[in-house]
Parts: sequence; C-alpha cells; structure tokens
Amino acid sequence: MPERGERPGEFGMIARYLRPLADDPGAFGLTDDAALLRPEPGFDLVLTKDMVAAGVHFFPDDPPESIARKALRVNLSDLAAKGATPIGYLLGLALPADWTEDWMAGFSAGLAEDQRRYGILLLGGDTVKSPDGLMLSVTALGQVPAGSIVRRAGAAIGDVIVVSGTIGDAALGLRLRLGTLDGSAAGEGASHLLDRYLHPQPRLGLAEAVRSFASASLDISDGLIGDLGHITRTSGVSAVVEAARVPLSDAARALISADPTAFASIVTGGDDYEILTTMPEARFAAYQAAADRAGIPVAVIGRIVEGQGPPVVTDAQGNAISLGRSSHDHF
Amino acid sequence: MPERGERPGEFGMIARYLRPLADDPGAFGLTDDAALLRPEPGFDLVLTKDMVAAGVHFFPDDPPESIARKALRVNLSDLAAKGATPIGYLLGLALPADWTEDWMAGFSAGLAEDQRRYGILLLGGDTVKSPDGLMLSVTALGQVPAGSIVRRAGAAIGDVIVVSGTIGDAALGLRLRLGTLDGSAAGEGASHLLDRYLHPQPRLGLAEAVRSFASASLDISDGLIGDLGHITRTSGVSAVVEAARVPLSDAARALISADPTAFASIVTGGDDYEILTTMPEARFAAYQAAADRAGIPVAVIGRIVEGQGPPVVTDAQGNAISLGRSSHDHF
Repeated sequence: MPERGERPGEFGMIARYLRPLADDPGAFGLTDDAALLRPEPGFDLVLTKDMVAAGVHFFPDDPPESIARKALRVNLSDLAAKGATPIGYLLGLALPADWTEDWMAGFSAGLAEDQRRYGILLLGGDTVKSPDGLMLSVTALGQVPAGSIVRRAGAAIGDVIVVSGTIGDAALGLRLRLGTLDGSAAGEGASHLLDRYLHPQPRLGLAEAVRSFASASLDISDGLIGDLGHITRTSGVSAVVEAARVPLSDAARALISADPTAFASIVTGGDDYEILTTMPEARFAAYQAAADRAGIPVAVIGRIVEGQGPPVVTDAQGNAISLGRSSHDHF
Repeated sequence: MPERGERPGEFGMIARYLRPLADDPGAFGLTDDAALLRPEPGFDLVLTKDMVAAGVHFFPDDPPESIARKALRVNLSDLAAKGATPIGYLLGLALPADWTEDWMAGFSAGLAEDQRRYGILLLGGDTVKSPDGLMLSVTALGQVPAGSIVRRAGAAIGDVIVVSGTIGDAALGLRLRLGTLDGSAAGEGASHLLDRYLHPQPRLGLAEAVRSFASASLDISDGLIGDLGHITRTSGVSAVVEAARVPLSDAARALISADPTAFASIVTGGDDYEILTTMPEARFAAYQAAADRAGIPVAVIGRIVEGQGPPVVTDAQGNAISLGRSSHDHF
C-alpha cells in the first residue's frame, strides 16, 4: 500500500484515478481546460447541479464508493424527474489535505461502477484542495426530445399525485445513524433503511413514462410534503395526501407501529430520491404499466385540489394530520 | 440592517439574492430541479467547471463582490481560451453558517454586474450549508461553431508562442498580500498588482481570433511555464520562451528591478488568466490585428521546438534560466 508520502500530486492523481472514467472523446482525457459536447439535433439539454458536503449530506467516514455514488445519483435523480436521459457529468472534487490513495481508489471505483450502470461518462471538472472537509459538486447533463421537459409547474386541479417506490426509508435510516430513533422494531430491516440513506436509486427507468404522462414532476429530496409543496406553489394549486396511501417498506411500517411519531419523519425527512408526479387520473393506468415494465412500483397517494395553501396530509377519517415542519431546509 | 436572526432560509435566500440573476427562460426562475438549454444548431457546447475555496483561491475577507467575480471569471477565461462564446452558468454555493445578508447582497451584486458585462445569465445551481468555509463551484457553458474548439493539443514545431496582456501581475499581487515580497519599489503600482489578483479579466474579446488563428490555446491559471508545459506535453513538442519578451506591467518591472528573483514568480506563479496560444508565425499579424480591434495587447514570447522536455526559459544570451518548480500545484 503506498505510503502517505508517495501520493501523486494533482495531475498524477487525475491521471491515475479520474482519467480512466473519462472515455468520452469530448472529455479530451481530462487534459484540456474544457469539455466538448455536440448536442443531438432535436433535443433540449437538461442541466442539474447538486453539491454534497461531508458532515451535511453524508458522514465523513462513509465508504468512498458510497460517497461517490450518492454525489452522482442525486443528480441523476433530478434528470429522471425531468424526463431526461443522462449524457454525462462534470465533477468538482474538493479534497481535504489528508486524502489517501486508498480513498481515491474506492471513490473512483464507485464512480466507474455507476457510470456503467447508468451509461454515462465523466466529461470534465476540477479538483482543488479543500481547507476543511470533503466537498463534491456534480453537474449532470441529460437530454429530452425538444419541448418535452417536465417541470414542477403544471399540476392541475383534479390530477392524482403519484410516487415511485417507498417513502421515508432514507429519513429513517438517517435517524438510525444519528441514534434519534430506536430501530429494534425493524429487526434486520434496519439495514435496508441504512442502505436507502447511503445509496439513492435514481429512477431513470421512469424518465420516458414521466415525459409521456406527467403534468408535473420532481424528485423527492427535501421530503415528500415539502417537495409536493414545490409543485403546488409553482402550479398555483394545493394538494391532499392520504397518509394511509403513502407506500412504505416493511421496515418503515414496523418502525411506525412501534413509534407512530416516526410518520412525520417519513413524509418530511427527505433523501428519498423517488419520483413525485401529478397527472390526470385517466393517464395513471398507462403510467403504471410503463413503470411496471421498468420494474418500478408507483402508487397514487392523493389529489391536487384548488387552493393556495401547503399540502395537507389526512388520516383515515379525512382529518388533517399535524406534521410540524414540513420540509428539510439545507441551511 | 437585518439582524442575524431575521435571515431568510434557503428558499428565501435564493428568491431574494439569486433569482433576480436568473432571467433566462431555461432557468425557470430557479424554481425547478434543473435548467433547460436549447442548443443552437451548428454549434458545439463547451463546458468548464472551476471550484474556488476560501483560504485556497481567495482570502475569506475579500469583498463578496470580488469573490463572486473571481469564481465566475476564471471559468469565462477557460471559455475564451477555447474560442467559445459564453452562454450561461450554474452556481454551486456552499455557505458557511455565519453568512450575512450584507454578504449575500454584495455577492449577488458582483454576479449581476459581471452578467451584464459578459452577456450571460445564471441558469441554475445549488446552495448548501458548508460545514466550514465558503466554497464556490461554477459550471460555465459556452459555444463554438461546430468543430472549431481550440485545444491544448495542436502546437506544431516552429509555431510562435503568444500571450495576451501582461504576465505575473496576479502572482506578485498574491505575494504582496501574503507579505512574502516587498512592494515598495512598485509605489502606487502595487494596487494594480493586488487588483490583478482579485479581479481576473477573462479575455473573451480574443475568443474569435483564437478560433481563427491559434493552433493550440489555454488560459494561464497555473503559471506561464506550467501551462505552456500542458500545451507542449499534449502536443508532443517542447518550447523555448525568451525571458526578455515576456510582457510585464510597469509595476512588475519595478519589482523585478528591485528583486530579480521575483521573475520566477512571474512565470510560474499563476492566476494570470491571460490567453496563451501557439500559431504559425505567418498568422500572427492577423491575430494581432484582431486583438488590437478588441483592445487587448498580444505579444510573441517564444517558439515551439522539437523535443519532449518541459519548456525552457532563456536569457538574453540564449542560456536556460533555472526557475525552481515550474507550476502551481493545487494540492
């Protein structure tokens, strides 16, 4: 194993760990100032940028493979929600002074595996010394047939509200990591929750169906209710979510049975990276069929209604449930 | 003036300070997950990403207007060097916990002024809490007529080496800031050097001429000799630079007269953000005429030669000058 003193400098590190990720001809082997992208005629480009910082979005001692994947996947999740097919990404990497070759090897391997999984390549980026902790800034590029991006604005009164997968797993996993929730009721399911926090699953398999059927769409990163509020606010409407229809994993269900107050974490906690869409009810069957073909479960959880207020979550009697704060604030 | 306790949260901050910068329809007023860019037919996109961190690339107490400009301009400088016209940018902003509204107002004003100056708009980005100091990640997008990007690779034996502006001012300015150089010989010129460090001038006025005439091009960020080495290495050639032909400001000239060892800082110190190009000698007159029309001085400083070694700087007798380390390493 190389000693600390034998670490390569900036250019050596790029050549060893990042250049192998940059096979795209427009990346110029990461030896130029900029990357080149020849847009495909008839497509719009979709651009998204998410930063993640140690101690804020991940734990400094998380495996480097997992940190790499999380930084990449939260961006791919944005593309999926907009109906876009990913093209590639630029990576900004601010490394603390004590980085090791082992760490970079793991980080690079995590990126390489996800590049294969999602069919994308590293186009370019920048590496700098971080005065403090690790910080990553990914800019991901995708494309949609011209004019077909799906926005947050667009939800119409009467539309059904649809989510993919299960909600709240990552928020519960984070609480288990932080020790603010007792996970014993979940048994071995606790590891599922921890994994959902560490490894978001961007729902790229839904992108085409989102484009075809959704009136509005985003990915849930700030919490179901907070993100639904982004849709309703930009669309000039309000929403009602039926608590009992929010899809839960077995582990999440077990934890709620033991501690009903955990439900608030599920719908406000964030980090789901599931796709939240609205659409006319008549389109849902076709959306669900397309999601089935992609192997991704989707479920109706409520309805868009007239109004200007924030989304309301109702119990089985139709009464509003109080959830405390409704959204994750990154500040 | 608002008290610390009245600061807006993330969404309020974005609405107040960043949304006014995002007039582009594809930015969706920064209310969506992603930005949309409809590429202009017949053009290639040029993508560049530079991160800057407090304590590494700028001083934490630099004016927020200046920090904003530097983060943006170092990216625009890359575009200019590639021959590209800027389109817009995405901003990643990791704010320390003690940010103030005054700071954000200054930061935002600096961006707004440069957006007008360079004809670009904010397209999107991300704001996160920084666990430590301020960090900025800008991804800038530009375009070139398809196939016309100018790369680092492309310098041919016999080409002249050309730089814009004056070299070394920012490196001397940084040394004055750090107190490692006595600036008294420069008199009032010291403020010019300090300003050159704080406010890079991206040479966008040269972009078209670079496209038309240069065989290879980059912007000088790591130091003249180190960056020239990037050109020679990717081009498979070597280079000779005549020290006496490197264009200097009056202030830099005064400092070298007082302390000849400062010359090494000038050619290796970095942060110039001038354009370093190579081209067949026969094209230089036309390049210079185009640069004149843009109001930007350009000068031949040497020649591309056969070989694989790093660039050599020669004195008036043609003897190689020893410069110590030849490039700034960000690590």
